[in-house]
Amino acid sequence: MSTIKDVAKEAGVSVATVSRFLNKSGYVSENSAKNVLDAIKKLDYQPNSVARALFHKTSKMIGLIVPDITNPFFPELARAVEDVSMIYGYKVLLGNSDGDPEKEQNYLDLFDQKYVDGIIMTSRSSKTDLTLNTDTPIVVLDRANISGLPTVTSNNYEGARQAVELLIEKGAMHIAHIRGPREITSANDRYQGFIDEMLKNNMDYVIAESAFNLKSAEEAAHHFFDKHKQIDAIFCSNDTIAVGFLKVALKKGIQIPADLQIIGFDGVAFGEMVYPELTTVAQPIYDMGAMASRLLIKLIEKEEPEQLLYELKNSIIERGTTRK
Amino acid sequence: MSTIKDVAKEAGVSVATVSRFLNKSGYVSENSAKNVLDAIKKLDYQPNSVARALFHKTSKMIGLIVPDITNPFFPELARAVEDVSMIYGYKVLLGNSDGDPEKEQNYLDLFDQKYVDGIIMTSRSSKTDLTLNTDTPIVVLDRANISGLPTVTSNNYEGARQAVELLIEKGAMHIAHIRGPREITSANDRYQGFIDEMLKNNMDYVIAESAFNLKSAEEAAHHFFDKHKQIDAIFCSNDTIAVGFLKVALKKGIQIPADLQIIGFDGVAFGEMVYPELTTVAQPIYDMGAMASRLLIKLIEKEEPEQLLYELKNSIIERGTTRK
Repeated sequence: MSTIKDVAKEAGVSVATVSRFLNKSGYVSENSAKNVLDAIKKLDYQPNSVARALFHKTSKMIGLIVPDITNPFFPELARAVEDVSMIYGYKVLLGNSDGDPEKEQNYLDLFDQKYVDGIIMTSRSSKTDLTLNTDTPIVVLDRANISGLPTVTSNNYEGARQAVELLIEKGAMHIAHIRGPREITSANDRYQGFIDEMLKNNMDYVIAESAFNLKSAEEAAHHFFDKHKQIDAIFCSNDTIAVGFLKVALKKGIQIPADLQIIGFDGVAFGEMVYPELTTVAQPIYDMGAMASRLLIKLIEKEEPEQLLYELKNSIIERGTTRK
Repeated sequence: MSTIKDVAKEAGVSVATVSRFLNKSGYVSENSAKNVLDAIKKLDYQPNSVARALFHKTSKMIGLIVPDITNPFFPELARAVEDVSMIYGYKVLLGNSDGDPEKEQNYLDLFDQKYVDGIIMTSRSSKTDLTLNTDTPIVVLDRANISGLPTVTSNNYEGARQAVELLIEKGAMHIAHIRGPREITSANDRYQGFIDEMLKNNMDYVIAESAFNLKSAEEAAHHFFDKHKQIDAIFCSNDTIAVGFLKVALKKGIQIPADLQIIGFDGVAFGEMVYPELTTVAQPIYDMGAMASRLLIKLIEKEEPEQLLYELKNSIIERGTTRK
């Protein structure tokens, strides 16, 4: 039977850090949280679950609502939610809402019928007309505008700003942004970050739009390249759009990154599968899911959350679609 | 309130077909099943769930065990399981086993503690040392060698054979196969299909090996291309390996498909994201998940399954990594 000391040793952190992680109290760096999580899994460490179960009568289930588990952003999030939930003895019920507020409501109602102790709702829609049962804790992931609900997201605005900074540093003179759908909060934040940084640098810019799917991105790219011959760098609102633009550019014989630099957003796995590999603003997807689970379990167990909004930092991964 | 007639009309099939689908009895073509499913979702049709709930005292939950939801094959499978389960009023509990028999056993035990009515177990491992509770119905997905358990898989052997046929038809003279791990049933079946078809055509062949992940595939590709200069076609055991070989080939300046043709296996979404797009032996992933759910619910509701092994057909999707 492993102890909290074994976990701390394995993770290379202090017992206090492991305790903060397990009790979801105080600051634990993303890196330490990851190490602690790995150590807990490796040692199969069980926190004082017996003691906790005595105090909390629960179904020990969490409902996770995602728009579509086949969208590459969500499996990693779901994996994190499941990994962390398992540590605390919670199982995860999965629901796909297709981002449709009616389906989201269905799942909220369904999960609420005494099935789950809490709900993590991931949605990229900004629709707010949901009826929420205030008895069941809800944590919102990647959707920052349901007022009052605890939320875990990443700093989309700042990530977009940094993408522009990098493109300018790499010599880009004529930059375009392919923005995502207007009803998606994160797409709007990325758009605003792009605009503000371009204005700060007194640079003109081109804006085009695409849905967050490959087909729409390829269509947008064909139109775009026919019209805008002078553009030498594109910041795309997510990795799927970026890969669509990359494909069409390669098909047209445009040299990447010599003639055109491309940056995506999200940091999903397929960015490494394309050639050249995609430079991207990577969200800490796994950490976001893990953080949401810890926050939710804290709420389920009637502890007070320290913050209502956790906005994690993004980081740029430079790969082959930007210059060295 | 939609009726079974509305569903039949919307799906463009007979009422009898919808009934066969709902009752999981008799033959329904993959195409019809997909149309019926779409119609049910569109019309939000609820089969006689009240009548059924009266007859069957159940928790109305299904446990789904996958190796890793972040592996691109499994989200689509999970989506299908959830879509079909929802139609019958079942919710889906998700577990990630990492293909580790111990974790699989943990989930089997955990799900069994009165939480679920049945379990769908997806694993690519061929380990068979699991202790199964015979009271809880189990359907096995993509893993054909747990004797006695109802299983849904695709015809991996035949798919591999067809891949070789296509390469020969497209003028390939020197063909290699990059096989997957030896403990994975489907990888072995694909390997055998490759070998048999090559021997039938009296052709020599080269065999190399890679794990089902990008890093391993890229390493294998570097070794491979250094050693085998004369190979003009590669059949890879899955799409991830194929994409790794494609990337390294492009990096080395090899012309695809003029100098080297590549075929993958699975038909996952990222095959369309790379350029040139990947030719692949596509498994009916969504249909496999849907079929497994219907079969499991049938077992839960104490109906006799017509077959214990459903082996669905694969189909080759010709794209840019093979010649026109």
